Amino acid sequence: MPSKLKKIFFLTFAASHLLTSLALHAVTPSAEEILAKSTPKDWRIPDQDNLLYMKLPQGMVIFELAPEFAPEHVSNIKLLAKEKYWDKLSVYRVHDNFVAQFGDPMAMESREGPNVKPLGSAREKLPAEFERSSIDVEFSKLPDVDGWAPQVGFSKGFAVGKDPKNNTMWLTHCYGMLGAGRFSAKDSSTGAELYMVIGQSPRQIDLNITSVGRVIQGAEFLSGLKRGTGVVGIYKTPEEYTPIEWIRLGTDLKAEQQVNVEILHTNSEIFKEIVEAKRNRVDDFYARPAGHIDLCNISVPVREQQAHLK
Amino acid sequence: MPSKLKKIFFLTFAASHLLTSLALHAVTPSAEEILAKSTPKDWRIPDQDNLLYMKLPQGMVIFELAPEFAPEHVSNIKLLAKEKYWDKLSVYRVHDNFVAQFGDPMAMESREGPNVKPLGSAREKLPAEFERSSIDVEFSKLPDVDGWAPQVGFSKGFAVGKDPKNNTMWLTHCYGMLGAGRFSAKDSSTGAELYMVIGQSPRQIDLNITSVGRVIQGAEFLSGLKRGTGVVGIYKTPEEYTPIEWIRLGTDLKAEQQVNVEILHTNSEIFKEIVEAKRNRVDDFYARPAGHIDLCNISVPVREQQAHLK
Repeated sequence: MPSKLKKIFFLTFAASHLLTSLALHAVTPSAEEILAKSTPKDWRIPDQDNLLYMKLPQGMVIFELAPEFAPEHVSNIKLLAKEKYWDKLSVYRVHDNFVAQFGDPMAMESREGPNVKPLGSAREKLPAEFERSSIDVEFSKLPDVDGWAPQVGFSKGFAVGKDPKNNTMWLTHCYGMLGAGRFSAKDSSTGAELYMVIGQSPRQIDLNITSVGRVIQGAEFLSGLKRGTGVVGIYKTPEEYTPIEWIRLGTDLKAEQQVNVEILHTNSEIFKEIVEAKRNRVDDFYARPAGHIDLCNISVPVREQQAHLK
Repeated sequence: MPSKLKKIFFLTFAASHLLTSLALHAVTPSAEEILAKSTPKDWRIPDQDNLLYMKLPQGMVIFELAPEFAPEHVSNIKLLAKEKYWDKLSVYRVHDNFVAQFGDPMAMESREGPNVKPLGSAREKLPAEFERSSIDVEFSKLPDVDGWAPQVGFSKGFAVGKDPKNNTMWLTHCYGMLGAGRFSAKDSSTGAELYMVIGQSPRQIDLNITSVGRVIQGAEFLSGLKRGTGVVGIYKTPEEYTPIEWIRLGTDLKAEQQVNVEILHTNSEIFKEIVEAKRNRVDDFYARPAGHIDLCNISVPVREQQAHLK
């Protein structure tokens, strides 16, 4: 599995130049170099019961759910997955520079109507879960200013905003964030209609909707879909929909179907070093370090489980 | 042509709810409502000589070049377009959440080599044009903090950063920004290899590369391409490349091929109102206004030329 770490050289050739430049002047270590120093305790193995696998014809998309941020929604989503709710449903909306949305096309305008697929044992009504208490919750604060939230950083692998005055914390709409689509009423999301952010982070939606997790693998199978040409990126014809073969929790898959990954602890020193290297990148390509990084420019390293952990 | 204004309702049904809610409580006017008040002087017609049309099998992508920010590069790009340099070349790299890059696949690692397409009358060597003087340059400053630049805002339709201490201004790597790929040497871009930003704005590249323009139509034909699975998103096989049918300046197209658009002046009061509405959005969907907007969350309105201007 390819690492989620982004190489930002524009041209592959740069790698050989880098070796030369290392001898000439000090450069920021790359994320790969920093990760090479990591030890087993810097990594966690996500619970397969929190991994949502979505099988598309294009490939497998895997999300990590966030029960600590949206317990009711995640619980509903788990029920829906167990009861195979999404099998044969579709990705029916791909809105450029915004979101890819999937679920039941017949329910995109209303859950009333004869053709809407019933939710089975899952609940039709959930409370809005836009934020949670920040008290006693792990939080690794970024050093830089953020215009959208008093503080931003990471909590157990998730990009979050925090308001220390009100003791609240919430998942942020960064690229790859998984959210629960809703109608106008704040409590009208069920987790049945989900969307993933595929463009510039629409942080204005933070605190206005329930976020339920984030992608850890296969984002490109959603972000690389043809955009819908209807209103708000909904496909004009059902023929354009991307069919969902199935969606399952990792625990409901056979061992050989499960993807065995480990995710860097976002409260580790190694992660802090990676963030710092990104804030002030100097290498053969980056002549001018930014002295800053935005929350949504940081990807949390995910890799195949290493032998010592298996 | 669809407006570039993004509708951010999650579900189309919301529109009818909006009518109800208008009667119930104060809502922020939508961009459409604000634009309805605009007058002809709020709009400018871009110079066809600064519009770069790229014909892909998927559709037409149109960029507005920024000669005031990168005069040497834009001049080279115009020569390349006139001499049909890009015809039958390719989009050979689509790096998820980063860039779609196009030009000559044989030149992506080096401009040396027998199979590299010659640049014709265009220059092989240009100066880096990472920034320009900000003195006497139009600038509409955003009210909000930005972590990457002392000030940010818009200059003649382009999203820019500004450093008032050093009197410099530069194009920023927002979604849709068009940049000139380079090798390790700062002055190794020619404008022949171009890329468009297709993900979370990689602002760390600001001031490290020459930006030459921005997309005004058809971004989705690049952002919606299958991602490359090779290193840095380069396609592993040439069969995966998207062929470029042709790239031309608007002035070299027949009148009926030209797209006749008008772009809202970014120093107009109307644009300021739109930004303000985005900063504090309250409507049937947005219950909690952000009190902030990021530079790269603002799209500059583009529409078909209205009758009064034709």
